[in-house]
Amino acid sequence: MIVMEYLSPHIIMRKGLVRGIEYPRFAADIAEFLAATLFHTSVLAGTAAEHKRRLELFARNVELCRITEDLVFTDPYREAPLNRWTSPQLDADKRAFETDAPLKAAAQARKYQFLTDAQALIHGDLHTGSIMLTTADTRVIDPEFAFVGPIGFDVGAVIGNLLLAYFAQEGHEAALHARDPYRAWILDQVVEVWAGFHDRFLALWRQAKGGEAFVAGLFISPQDEAALDAERRRFLRSLFEDALAFGGLKMIRRILGLAHVEDLESIADPERRAICERKALSLARTLVVEGAKFAGVSDVIEAARAVARG
Amino acid sequence: MIVMEYLSPHIIMRKGLVRGIEYPRFAADIAEFLAATLFHTSVLAGTAAEHKRRLELFARNVELCRITEDLVFTDPYREAPLNRWTSPQLDADKRAFETDAPLKAAAQARKYQFLTDAQALIHGDLHTGSIMLTTADTRVIDPEFAFVGPIGFDVGAVIGNLLLAYFAQEGHEAALHARDPYRAWILDQVVEVWAGFHDRFLALWRQAKGGEAFVAGLFISPQDEAALDAERRRFLRSLFEDALAFGGLKMIRRILGLAHVEDLESIADPERRAICERKALSLARTLVVEGAKFAGVSDVIEAARAVARG
Repeated sequence: MIVMEYLSPHIIMRKGLVRGIEYPRFAADIAEFLAATLFHTSVLAGTAAEHKRRLELFARNVELCRITEDLVFTDPYREAPLNRWTSPQLDADKRAFETDAPLKAAAQARKYQFLTDAQALIHGDLHTGSIMLTTADTRVIDPEFAFVGPIGFDVGAVIGNLLLAYFAQEGHEAALHARDPYRAWILDQVVEVWAGFHDRFLALWRQAKGGEAFVAGLFISPQDEAALDAERRRFLRSLFEDALAFGGLKMIRRILGLAHVEDLESIADPERRAICERKALSLARTLVVEGAKFAGVSDVIEAARAVARG
Repeated sequence: MIVMEYLSPHIIMRKGLVRGIEYPRFAADIAEFLAATLFHTSVLAGTAAEHKRRLELFARNVELCRITEDLVFTDPYREAPLNRWTSPQLDADKRAFETDAPLKAAAQARKYQFLTDAQALIHGDLHTGSIMLTTADTRVIDPEFAFVGPIGFDVGAVIGNLLLAYFAQEGHEAALHARDPYRAWILDQVVEVWAGFHDRFLALWRQAKGGEAFVAGLFISPQDEAALDAERRRFLRSLFEDALAFGGLKMIRRILGLAHVEDLESIADPERRAICERKALSLARTLVVEGAKFAGVSDVIEAARAVARG
């Protein structure tokens, strides 16, 4: 897929985020991608037989799933030979995460969910390095981690990587506050991605006729529809907390684990980089351990702003 | 397996429950069976690769899973050609369940869980007709519904079928209160099955070293162990509510759906049978819709006693 970078005007979104480029179509496009792919490969849209067939096919993707299982959920929280972090600046932070009991328990509960919650065919690695775009077009690449897993993992990957880009801006601006408008744009994308995904997923579900879970023919009266809609909202609330937790875990692993991201790596001064990373770690931990306290996505960006102010 | 009935002294437990026979080993044996099979086929005990292999193999069990999906979660709540119930005595009850919006939404949420919650290799049809025993020995038969599904489905199957047997006693006793001691024995089994399963599952988890979820090496300090144990207790609480809901759904389907049970069918007088069935339906609905209100299994048997008193 690297070839595409040279043949097409699309660039890897992560590089655009480092440069400070706004992509007007991104949020709507990725929200539609998330809702469409995740809804239509679930039993909310299709049959149990189709779902079992998906499960059977993608259960063979053992090795790439294993990378995620180790690098996202486990290695950042222990001494592992390939872990890297901005040292010595973050040495104490790394040690604190290794002994953070509630965080480790929450991370492993999410690993359990990743291993067992067979909701939909997920991309499995939907960070901003897996998105190529122009100001007019958005493409998703690198689906090799795909398997039948939790919907919130893909949604959280997008949100978590936007938040990494947000905290990295402090390391890229020429002068203090120079990138404030771009920071605000990134946080708007977090809101729009979640809201767009939420609304589109809900709309698809309300229109669906063929899903074998929540069989449409059972819900006829206004009371039925109200009870079903309450169930849909519970479901989406649960996805929201899933997305925050998975997003937070993906932020942490990019700062304390093996694979880092250009957003932060390209900040040459380690002192400056460590300041950005410490703030990102702080919000990420809250998303993993205390996601339940966020009433909605605007509370999340409010928390991000508060952490960024320091 | 029918042949076994003639060659061995074991009888199908359901027949024993109709006759009023006590099985001193049953609760401990089935609790051990549940804990051992469900724990050891989960990622709490084993590797992700093993789990994906199980998923792949058992995702092929489409047709038998489909029977459960339709007959347990959907058909009892609509007009389906093969539904049966004690008519005309329960006609109004059947209609009420078809228009019970919260119950239908809860039943379909559990169907979604059945289709997506790939926790362990479950038996999938563990009612008292799949258990053969003597007073000294317990055997589980008929594993053809097995697939990787929610742990609470097996636990709930045992509990729900014990509760069906409990409510059926009123139809079998020669005189009022003649079977009170046997009723009490059945409720004791509900408590002992849940408590035995809970304690054994927890013990297996605490001893486990090889599970790829909740990696043992991450939890070292007393604080780590406390946080992990809090997570284990949350997990088991969630299994408890799953078991109640699945158990309740399995009770309902045996009274309003296609396949009935000898416990109730062998009550010849339809008036008498309908009284038993209506009580069972009442508790079952509570288990499905309001499981969260039960602090523990003793509250469940208290609720069963209250319903039985009328």
